Amino acid sequence: MFASASSLDATFAALADPTRRAILARLASGEATVTELAEPFAMSQPAISKHLKVLERAGLISGGREAQRRPRRLEAQPLAKASQWLDEYRKFWEDRFLRLDALLEDMKIEEKQKRPPAKGRKRK
Amino acid sequence: MFASASSLDATFAALADPTRRAILARLASGEATVTELAEPFAMSQPAISKHLKVLERAGLISGGREAQRRPRRLEAQPLAKASQWLDEYRKFWEDRFLRLDALLEDMKIEEKQKRPPAKGRKRK
Repeated sequence: MFASASSLDATFAALADPTRRAILARLASGEATVTELAEPFAMSQPAISKHLKVLERAGLISGGREAQRRPRRLEAQPLAKASQWLDEYRKFWEDRFLRLDALLEDMKIEEKQKRPPAKGRKRK
Repeated sequence: MFASASSLDATFAALADPTRRAILARLASGEATVTELAEPFAMSQPAISKHLKVLERAGLISGGREAQRRPRRLEAQPLAKASQWLDEYRKFWEDRFLRLDALLEDMKIEEKQKRPPAKGRKRK
């Protein structure tokens, strides 16, 4: 379970910020330069660059091939690994939701049985 | 995309620590008290309690029904939401891995074509 624990640490820490998640969402549709990435945010380029550094250190993005513009691109592997970790809990939450559904169903049936039949309405 | 951004922030931040992830793994198999949770770690109970507070604030665990022992239990919803967020990128990394596979396949074929056929061996 502790295999690549530090890389999971870095991935989850990098994802714990709305600006960084928005940057990843933008890069999912293609490479972009720092200027392009900064545009939608009310943030200075140095502030954006700081976020990019966190994402880079976590391996979530990498510098592009063009040395001058250095467009950044999304890296798939850390996201896949984080998702894989969460998948271990899928059975757990699916069971919970199924039990909640069953509970709600029971409550509905109980509610129906409590209510007296409306007068003048045909009963099936 | 920014809906419940702060809860995603808290979830991912809470997951960015191996001890906290190990606590969640333990709770996935059933409720446990602080003493029980502290056992497998070379950590003081106050240190464990700190981690539990982070998990509680993120809604990942909750106190149990027994007031005295207050066993903690895993809460499914934040994990499901984090997984849902990562799922948006599933297509992205699956495409990447498919392209890598295709590239490796091409390299294998090229390698095969370069190699001269071994003498004395039957060829299919």
